[in-house]
Amino acid sequence: MSELSAKAIVLLGDGAGDRPVPQLQGQTPLEAQATPALDEIAKGGECGLMDPIAPGIPAGSDTAHLSLLGYDPYTYYTGRGPFEARGIGMRVQAGDVAFRCNFATVDDDWTVLNRRAGRIKEKEGTPELAAAVNTAAGVIEGVQCAFKESVEHRGALVLHGEGLDPRVTDADPHTENSKVLEVRAEDPAAAKTARVVNHWIRRTYEALKDHPVNADRKWPANIVLPRGVGVAPHLKPFQAEHAMSGAMIVEVALIQGLGEYLEMDVIRVPGATGGYDTDEMAIAQAVVEAHASHDFVLCNIKCPDLGGHDGSWEKKQAAIAKLDRAAGYLLDHIDFDHTVMVVTADHSTPVAVKDHSGDPVAIVAYGVGTRPDDVSRYGERPCARGGLCRIRGVDVIRILSNLTGAQKKFGS
Amino acid sequence: MSELSAKAIVLLGDGAGDRPVPQLQGQTPLEAQATPALDEIAKGGECGLMDPIAPGIPAGSDTAHLSLLGYDPYTYYTGRGPFEARGIGMRVQAGDVAFRCNFATVDDDWTVLNRRAGRIKEKEGTPELAAAVNTAAGVIEGVQCAFKESVEHRGALVLHGEGLDPRVTDADPHTENSKVLEVRAEDPAAAKTARVVNHWIRRTYEALKDHPVNADRKWPANIVLPRGVGVAPHLKPFQAEHAMSGAMIVEVALIQGLGEYLEMDVIRVPGATGGYDTDEMAIAQAVVEAHASHDFVLCNIKCPDLGGHDGSWEKKQAAIAKLDRAAGYLLDHIDFDHTVMVVTADHSTPVAVKDHSGDPVAIVAYGVGTRPDDVSRYGERPCARGGLCRIRGVDVIRILSNLTGAQKKFGS
Repeated sequence: MSELSAKAIVLLGDGAGDRPVPQLQGQTPLEAQATPALDEIAKGGECGLMDPIAPGIPAGSDTAHLSLLGYDPYTYYTGRGPFEARGIGMRVQAGDVAFRCNFATVDDDWTVLNRRAGRIKEKEGTPELAAAVNTAAGVIEGVQCAFKESVEHRGALVLHGEGLDPRVTDADPHTENSKVLEVRAEDPAAAKTARVVNHWIRRTYEALKDHPVNADRKWPANIVLPRGVGVAPHLKPFQAEHAMSGAMIVEVALIQGLGEYLEMDVIRVPGATGGYDTDEMAIAQAVVEAHASHDFVLCNIKCPDLGGHDGSWEKKQAAIAKLDRAAGYLLDHIDFDHTVMVVTADHSTPVAVKDHSGDPVAIVAYGVGTRPDDVSRYGERPCARGGLCRIRGVDVIRILSNLTGAQKKFGS
Repeated sequence: MSELSAKAIVLLGDGAGDRPVPQLQGQTPLEAQATPALDEIAKGGECGLMDPIAPGIPAGSDTAHLSLLGYDPYTYYTGRGPFEARGIGMRVQAGDVAFRCNFATVDDDWTVLNRRAGRIKEKEGTPELAAAVNTAAGVIEGVQCAFKESVEHRGALVLHGEGLDPRVTDADPHTENSKVLEVRAEDPAAAKTARVVNHWIRRTYEALKDHPVNADRKWPANIVLPRGVGVAPHLKPFQAEHAMSGAMIVEVALIQGLGEYLEMDVIRVPGATGGYDTDEMAIAQAVVEAHASHDFVLCNIKCPDLGGHDGSWEKKQAAIAKLDRAAGYLLDHIDFDHTVMVVTADHSTPVAVKDHSGDPVAIVAYGVGTRPDDVSRYGERPCARGGLCRIRGVDVIRILSNLTGAQKKFGS
């Protein structure tokens, strides 16, 4: 921990931004939900709108967090696979090519019957399935193929060897009742990589189709489908980049992987499930603890995004209530005379869209050094009238490191 | 037309932005004029300020429209000449150099007596004059010199041949009672181009000075003066760039030429004169028709800009009343549950300046997916308090394509 004048926290409601919902009389879920803690923060802070990447651009979780951590995704984003792999403890070295994967269910003809093999419960046999895959397909054309299971039906594949190239397409057709796609090279230099991946997929099918773990499953996990290819990003560690020690408390492997790349302390909290049932108070307590020993803590509570993807404003409001309780705990347990906190979202996931969108999100900066404005409610439209006006994701960390004293003068 | 969740419209009042006018008690023409339709749109929409290029930068019509169509003019703008030429149906190929031109009146000594040859009425003899120019000066030093008349005193020149270079100066002195300027090469590589253009101008004088068409003219069109040099731009077609089919309804050849480059459907409306007398209802009807068959329609009504250039707030207000009537027709005939519309200006043309300026313009986004704010009047200062805050021209199309569903997620 450095000798700064203040510390910083970023609290994110994943996908919390939204559009007017007719059933909420044209309010957004954030505007409609009672959020006493977030309102108190808005009232005491400096509010605005934030475009995670740029106006109108729908951000992924990965690109949004890169941006919020001060790394312009147009410069630094090299694909999702490496973050996913790193998040579950795999190494991805320079020259490696990494994919995120799903266990899926196909018929004899490789038509995808269920893209998630029925959403496998927590590690229910997937370590055994992964071991079978690695035994059957550990090396292809001299390329080491390392596969590891993640949560539910997810996993990651890392290819390590000579002459690899990431310019290949997905095997996952992204819809059901479609055939598994042949992986194609988008550049001649990627021909070997495409061949290896296609070969690897065939071997996963051979290794899994009659595997005992699948015997009783309604949706046998009988194939592994790679997508989201990428190579190791070149990211300066967070502390070297921003002169603040950093901790990360998030619920998804993808963002944990980004934290590992940035050499932040990635803290995994028991009870933080990434689901609607997550223990937001355990997360808030972990933030307070991490705050004691770090200059900067980023925390993301995942469930508002799930409500958006599920198209349910009720679930999204319940998730926002959890975010509010976590925020309330931080209000009570953090010394804001020596801390500045930003509360915002990594992107909008409107219930009408059921996916990420490019709509800007509410943001508030609260605590030491901020200039409180006259906004008194947290939400997209109240915040739009605030003193921060409209900023971008990459601005956030600089605004914070300015207030913590970590930001160096440019010029003299 | 693609399978999007909504369609988009951009309605522009050309040059409609302004500064406070003392005779209007410090209001701008937009603020002072009664605009019931625009106010209804502001009331139901999300308002803000927009810098066509960047704060303080006075935009040309061409660079502003490039920007609003999502092409950063700092990257894509290669000069006005090619758009002007394309707009009147001329080809401009890679390697060609194109100029916009004026018919002008000079004395024996080549002092410019009237820069626009008295603003020639619609095609009054200019096709015959152009034919004479092309006969006299069709090929110079092996370079093909194609000239074509446009509206009023205007035209375009396209040079096609080996070794051309656009780094040459204008012949038009831009003021009267000054001598025609010798075209100079700003780089040695452009020496041949400068020589060809100077030679071509001399031949236009020789071909026109005693031409019968000029016999009865007070201001004989006895020379053609090139300016606004440029080369063919490299622009990805609009639909390929934005995943929306696009139509354009504008009144000036320059912007029509841009539309042709972008392979948009450029719709020419009978009665759309580009003048104060334009038939704004015919334009509005054409927008409604184009909207039925396209994902995106851009419409520009030219006359507010004329009021600015003429320094007349009365004429500008009358032109804004026309814009308002067109907007009212769209309100009545478009389904805004499935359409999002932006109403703004391509730039300010303050009556006090009589030219384009870098003042930001009012903007409102209205219709499906927008977050209505509490602004209830259209105009620079009412809109400045709205929920869009302050955006840039290049953001507009992304904000729209986010709401139509055409914008792809960046990252995952």
